[in-house]
Amino acid sequence: MSLTFTMHQTSDTARCATMQLPHGAVQTPIFMPVGTAATVKAVPQHLLEEIETQILLGNTYHLYLRPGHERIRRLGGLHKFMSWPHPILTDSGGFQVFSLSKLRKVTEDGVRFRSHLDGSSHFFSPEHSIDVQIALGADIVMVFDECTEYPATRERARTSLDLTLRWARRSRDHFLAHQHEVPWFDERGGQTQNLFGIVQGGMYADLRRESAERLVELDLPGYAIGGLSVGEPRESTREIIAATLPLLPADKPRYVMGVGYPEEIVEYAAMGVDMMDCVLPTRAARHGLLFTSEGRMNIKNLRYAEDQQPIDAKCKCRVCQRYTRAYLRHLFAAKEPLAAVLQSVHNLAFYLATMQSVRDSILLGSLSELLGRVRQREIAAAQES
Amino acid sequence: MSLTFTMHQTSDTARCATMQLPHGAVQTPIFMPVGTAATVKAVPQHLLEEIETQILLGNTYHLYLRPGHERIRRLGGLHKFMSWPHPILTDSGGFQVFSLSKLRKVTEDGVRFRSHLDGSSHFFSPEHSIDVQIALGADIVMVFDECTEYPATRERARTSLDLTLRWARRSRDHFLAHQHEVPWFDERGGQTQNLFGIVQGGMYADLRRESAERLVELDLPGYAIGGLSVGEPRESTREIIAATLPLLPADKPRYVMGVGYPEEIVEYAAMGVDMMDCVLPTRAARHGLLFTSEGRMNIKNLRYAEDQQPIDAKCKCRVCQRYTRAYLRHLFAAKEPLAAVLQSVHNLAFYLATMQSVRDSILLGSLSELLGRVRQREIAAAQES
Repeated sequence: MSLTFTMHQTSDTARCATMQLPHGAVQTPIFMPVGTAATVKAVPQHLLEEIETQILLGNTYHLYLRPGHERIRRLGGLHKFMSWPHPILTDSGGFQVFSLSKLRKVTEDGVRFRSHLDGSSHFFSPEHSIDVQIALGADIVMVFDECTEYPATRERARTSLDLTLRWARRSRDHFLAHQHEVPWFDERGGQTQNLFGIVQGGMYADLRRESAERLVELDLPGYAIGGLSVGEPRESTREIIAATLPLLPADKPRYVMGVGYPEEIVEYAAMGVDMMDCVLPTRAARHGLLFTSEGRMNIKNLRYAEDQQPIDAKCKCRVCQRYTRAYLRHLFAAKEPLAAVLQSVHNLAFYLATMQSVRDSILLGSLSELLGRVRQREIAAAQES
Repeated sequence: MSLTFTMHQTSDTARCATMQLPHGAVQTPIFMPVGTAATVKAVPQHLLEEIETQILLGNTYHLYLRPGHERIRRLGGLHKFMSWPHPILTDSGGFQVFSLSKLRKVTEDGVRFRSHLDGSSHFFSPEHSIDVQIALGADIVMVFDECTEYPATRERARTSLDLTLRWARRSRDHFLAHQHEVPWFDERGGQTQNLFGIVQGGMYADLRRESAERLVELDLPGYAIGGLSVGEPRESTREIIAATLPLLPADKPRYVMGVGYPEEIVEYAAMGVDMMDCVLPTRAARHGLLFTSEGRMNIKNLRYAEDQQPIDAKCKCRVCQRYTRAYLRHLFAAKEPLAAVLQSVHNLAFYLATMQSVRDSILLGSLSELLGRVRQREIAAAQES
């Protein structure tokens, strides 16, 4: 494993650092756009570069099913396949197996499931997930975990976290035995991928503690908090993050999976989270929900039909420089494919610029002011809706 | 009307010229991408600029129904609405009224029809079509015509061309009386739009002659040949174009509506056509049919699943510089919206580069060599399919 994590500045609990990965450096705290099927839906790669996307997330479950990890391996790995020469992280497939597939059967060995695409039968074990992720060749890969559902009883959360820990160990052992098989091993001078662990434990702070403490024993280069954003109230998400972060090594990247709204990602970064990902900016964009420096905007609303302003006058993105709300509303109403392209670019640009502000604020020691503004906006948005 | 058409070079029947329009100059012969609903489907405007799109076509029927021409007028006209500061041409709505709408009733006065969107009842007359087109404010507008269906009896074609001629005269009279109402009249120093006439006459060369001769009496700044690409064999299209072109003024732009395949547009440009438009490059792209310097390619084909070549090694477009056939095939198979974006950019780039080659060849006196190569490719493609 070949990650370095260099801290530049801390501000209370928040931290600003550089994570050096085989395919480049990532400035943290960072938000990672989700490129499920080797594409961030509707956005060309050069536009992702233009808005300064540093690292993408790919979904192992989807890529395994289509076009298949062996095909991607033969084509040189995911970076080459999708022409994204910058860092990538893949999840383990666990979350999608539990959320998308049908007829799942979980055993100690792994999960048998049916594809959501064609109903075909598949089996994922920790070893198989790692094999698939090595074939894909992302810079960061994840242990195969069971994402505990919400709500879950204490007993269920404990059983699940125990299984996840046994699977984490198997994931690590298999990874260490096979890490040199990554498609770019020789080309990158013997560098390898980086395996992150995942804390589970449901909404039980003591189980989270146990999960974190036992996981840290595996001495991995980074740790994620999983099993959040699964339907629980936002206050619970915050509490679990707050309770878990101090238990993870301060000198390694800490990643909260599957969050969140703009105000959430600022909040969590302030709490000390280094990495986050979420489909929200792109999925919301495709449904006409846009994020701005003044709150959320539903572009479908008739009030925008003749509004000649950009989505967000403070946004520097290409979409806000060129197009009006009136035009975007028309594209959305007419179900034109360009709506998804432009609105996804804006929402992602807004998320990435938000994290840039967070990093700048940490370096300048002004994070509490930024946090205050973001909370103010959240209150205003809540009042409006 | 404020168009100038400056001839640079002729080569046998082909001509290379500059058409100066209120929103810029257009080098002819030119292919015009179709932006039906104020968007070339799936392609952001800056990518249209990048591939050197000179002029777009907008569909009056669609824009009248949604978002409405009065709304577009209030927003400053189509150029401002869609943020396309370069030339635009709008059709008259006639073709779509006849091909898309329901329950049409044609009278001397005009056409009553039901919207394909919501079944609402509407009426288009020559005067109304012109009013709508003035509100949209394209650089070139078209007379309201009846697009004669195929096949049509001689009697039917004659009745239809007579009606089209009466409508052309009404279109012109109404245009002349209202041309100063275009949204950018003051801003562009009193320039106005340019109204083109449309030759009809079905597949009858003598009726086409009569239509052309009577239309030319209106002394319009440009003329189109309509009623082609409506299902007739390609040889008929060619014959009608060949028979009609010499009857149109040599010093004015000549536009063939709704064509065609890459080899057709080269052929017609060589015959002396200055302007063409077609949904083919974008529609085909969305269905996985790609045009290349070696013929057509159906990206769905399994043979491309691990093909690391670009769509067309000779193409300079951004898509061919970055992505492999294998990746595009995956996007298409996974129904990813990025497939339409990238494939539309390539197909349009290929069409526009093809017309650039035609212009270069006319200037260099080497058009016959280019024509030979294109015909050769067509023969090879026909043998392959």
